[in-house]
Amino acid sequence: MIDLRPAIYVIGLVIVALGGMMLFPLALDWYAGDPNWLAFLQSGILCVVCGGAAALATANAARSGLTLQQVFVLTVFTWVAACLFGALPLILGAPGLGWTDAVFEATSGLTTTGATVIVGLDGLPPGANLWRGMLHWLGGLGIVIIAMLFLPVMKVGGMQFFRSEGFDTLGKVLPRALDISSALVQIYVVMTLACAVTYAALGMGGFDAVVHALSTVSTGGFSTSDQSFAKFAGPLEYAAIVFMLAGSLPFIRFIQAWQGEWQPLWRDRQVRAYLRWNAYAVGAIVGYELLTHDLPFETVLRETAFNVVSVFSGTGFTSADLSSWGAFPFALLFAVGLIGGCTSSTGCSVKVFRWLILFEAVKLQLRRLYAPSAVNMLRYEGRTVEEDVVDAVISFFTLFMLTFGLLSVALSLAGLEFETAVTAAWTAIANVGPAFGPEVHPTGALLAFPDAAKWIMVGGMLIGRLELLAVYVLFMPRFWRG
Amino acid sequence: MIDLRPAIYVIGLVIVALGGMMLFPLALDWYAGDPNWLAFLQSGILCVVCGGAAALATANAARSGLTLQQVFVLTVFTWVAACLFGALPLILGAPGLGWTDAVFEATSGLTTTGATVIVGLDGLPPGANLWRGMLHWLGGLGIVIIAMLFLPVMKVGGMQFFRSEGFDTLGKVLPRALDISSALVQIYVVMTLACAVTYAALGMGGFDAVVHALSTVSTGGFSTSDQSFAKFAGPLEYAAIVFMLAGSLPFIRFIQAWQGEWQPLWRDRQVRAYLRWNAYAVGAIVGYELLTHDLPFETVLRETAFNVVSVFSGTGFTSADLSSWGAFPFALLFAVGLIGGCTSSTGCSVKVFRWLILFEAVKLQLRRLYAPSAVNMLRYEGRTVEEDVVDAVISFFTLFMLTFGLLSVALSLAGLEFETAVTAAWTAIANVGPAFGPEVHPTGALLAFPDAAKWIMVGGMLIGRLELLAVYVLFMPRFWRG
Ligand SMILES: [K+]
Ligand SMILES: [K+]
Repeated sequence: MIDLRPAIYVIGLVIVALGGMMLFPLALDWYAGDPNWLAFLQSGILCVVCGGAAALATANAARSGLTLQQVFVLTVFTWVAACLFGALPLILGAPGLGWTDAVFEATSGLTTTGATVIVGLDGLPPGANLWRGMLHWLGGLGIVIIAMLFLPVMKVGGMQFFRSEGFDTLGKVLPRALDISSALVQIYVVMTLACAVTYAALGMGGFDAVVHALSTVSTGGFSTSDQSFAKFAGPLEYAAIVFMLAGSLPFIRFIQAWQGEWQPLWRDRQVRAYLRWNAYAVGAIVGYELLTHDLPFETVLRETAFNVVSVFSGTGFTSADLSSWGAFPFALLFAVGLIGGCTSSTGCSVKVFRWLILFEAVKLQLRRLYAPSAVNMLRYEGRTVEEDVVDAVISFFTLFMLTFGLLSVALSLAGLEFETAVTAAWTAIANVGPAFGPEVHPTGALLAFPDAAKWIMVGGMLIGRLELLAVYVLFMPRFWRG
Repeated sequence: MIDLRPAIYVIGLVIVALGGMMLFPLALDWYAGDPNWLAFLQSGILCVVCGGAAALATANAARSGLTLQQVFVLTVFTWVAACLFGALPLILGAPGLGWTDAVFEATSGLTTTGATVIVGLDGLPPGANLWRGMLHWLGGLGIVIIAMLFLPVMKVGGMQFFRSEGFDTLGKVLPRALDISSALVQIYVVMTLACAVTYAALGMGGFDAVVHALSTVSTGGFSTSDQSFAKFAGPLEYAAIVFMLAGSLPFIRFIQAWQGEWQPLWRDRQVRAYLRWNAYAVGAIVGYELLTHDLPFETVLRETAFNVVSVFSGTGFTSADLSSWGAFPFALLFAVGLIGGCTSSTGCSVKVFRWLILFEAVKLQLRRLYAPSAVNMLRYEGRTVEEDVVDAVISFFTLFMLTFGLLSVALSLAGLEFETAVTAAWTAIANVGPAFGPEVHPTGALLAFPDAAKWIMVGGMLIGRLELLAVYVLFMPRFWRG
């Protein structure tokens, strides 16, 4: 049996930290004279007490390093615990959600999905909206740290390919994990501030700018308004495009750029492919819209670019009614959501790196058919990709599609219409944000979903965010035998 | 450059044979006193003349054996040529289709898809309906021969796993390909006769029984009636279940059973999994329908079993309005269509064997995560599955999903609604039959689809039927350099 105490210790500390974070919305609501600050005080105390007790009870066992099994347990249950405790302020204070809705909202926040069950966002106390944005921001930061430090060691979904990159290459510059993390936090904070300042300069109110910046760089998608980004149509959309793209690029390259090495960023095959594919998708839809609708060019370009990048990066802001664009743009957006951002970004879904490996593997397979004696090596950025990386990538993809299918069937069993079930499964597994169908509120909120559907989506969002395998491995009986 | 003459030679002979086959509908329409026999005479002559000329012109080059490249060219272009020439009677005679519709109908026939563009099937001359059934039957026979003799050598989609099975194991009993083929034809004919006799005994008219038998054992799905199998609701549905299942089981096992060895059939892991999954799907939907609708048990059981097996086997007969069953049954049927029948059957889609390998590969991957030193061998029916088989299976799956996505996007670009585009892509790539959406005629016919959509589906049906890789390999420039 695995010793769970070291994992519980860390999770306890994380919950204490989460409680500490509640001081920000507490202060804001206090300052705004909104009695909702009390909810954050209560929740914060609960977090500190529960988290602290857990950490204290297990502190003795926490001195040794972590085994691989413990890392898996730690990763998954940190998210689960944070989703439960992060939900507290939404239950104890405004908007006074029930358990199901609050956990859905917090999970949607921490997994950077951005699907909401709240209608009337514009009227929420500022602290509640700030907390929603902060959940995105913290979840995004957390996943980048996991992706950069843990996943390569855990060998999840082919991420071992980046093992040497995270450690060896950077090894000379940033010898320790703590240094990587601190560089990352600095970059993430600077990006967020730059985004908030840009939003404010282009006319967004200060508070809206901050919350939207939190949910932009984390490719989250929560908004302070029921209208999402439609409320900020215009130049602000172009600004958002820049920061959504930034949030979905590989942060490892930003760390290198932070150290003065900009070349790896521009030369990165993922970055180039990602930007190119975004441009293709925007071009295709702009062409289609101009041919089929009589709209001004700038409007079409802006709305298309904003919404395509929003889905591609997995942010999920909307500034137009996507389902009214026609079947082709809708189908393309659906496909784009299954690609997603780059590895070690806040983006989610299958990710560009894995698609590039899949394309190469298929090409190799085709070549083998007519030239069985040809060289069978898969190369990426000049490096040979080991067989175990290819296997892992391909297993990841298979599991992703399987999970997507199972979620669709499960959501339809929970009572959703077929279209709603499929798009909700899509938004959950790929952490995109929007869903479409008769049960979706005109604002895009999913409050009318049956409770069972909400819980299935909570599971789906966590599975998608934590790279599937990291979660599924916990369901193997032999895993626990250690 | 590849020498195409040996392939053209064989294709020419196939077209001559196809022309000869037209004697059956010719004779039937003549006997029925329907002037439509003339269309079969003209088409038959065209086939014999064109096919004969092609064969004669290339007969000199045909003495040597075929290279691997030539086998690919032969496989793909035999189907393409047969779809073009098989369409002739539907243009020159009843129902007087245009090129697009006729090629669609013939391709849907020869790929055993079963989607039709004709409304008014009940009023067609008998020869035309017989020809549609024969296209299914010939296409089904052709694909089983390809799957049993060619694909293992072509190593398409992991089929090399069955190489030894087709040749070594059977080697002692049936030393030559011709023997396998002739055993196969005997079994196929007996199955078809048994099916027709059963249908007739249970009340179907003689002609309907024959045509439906042709399209049942081939898992095709064309009917002589606009109502499809709803016209024959009752005991006939149970009979169809048996023969649709038979058509989607591995024919290699039938050949062994034909030789007196029944055990391999019952012990086959694919067969067991396939029958079990069918039972699960039927059980789940029956349970759901009984809970949500107030219908008699026998009706629910019969309709569910018939339609689930129809989609699972890729036959595509319908006896009920599937889209009215609710979202869960619909989602489950959609998923079931992406599994499909067994290898070396007339069934299509990903196939049970590949799903079993995929499951094993994912399980292995999960085990590797926490036990990196564990044995990494994948086993199937007691045999080790070589790495190249696993790679091929997994590349097949990736390509299948990619193609499905691309077809969906392309069909929506061609003007179909999203739901129609996705279900039409599904029916094309997996050769299922039905599609759903506002553009689908109440009888299920796709006649209102735009021409572009019909041609995209023609491509999709061929790609799906010919196991994707066999088609895609022709698009690689290096393939043609020999
Ligand atoms: K999102
Ligand atoms: K079919």
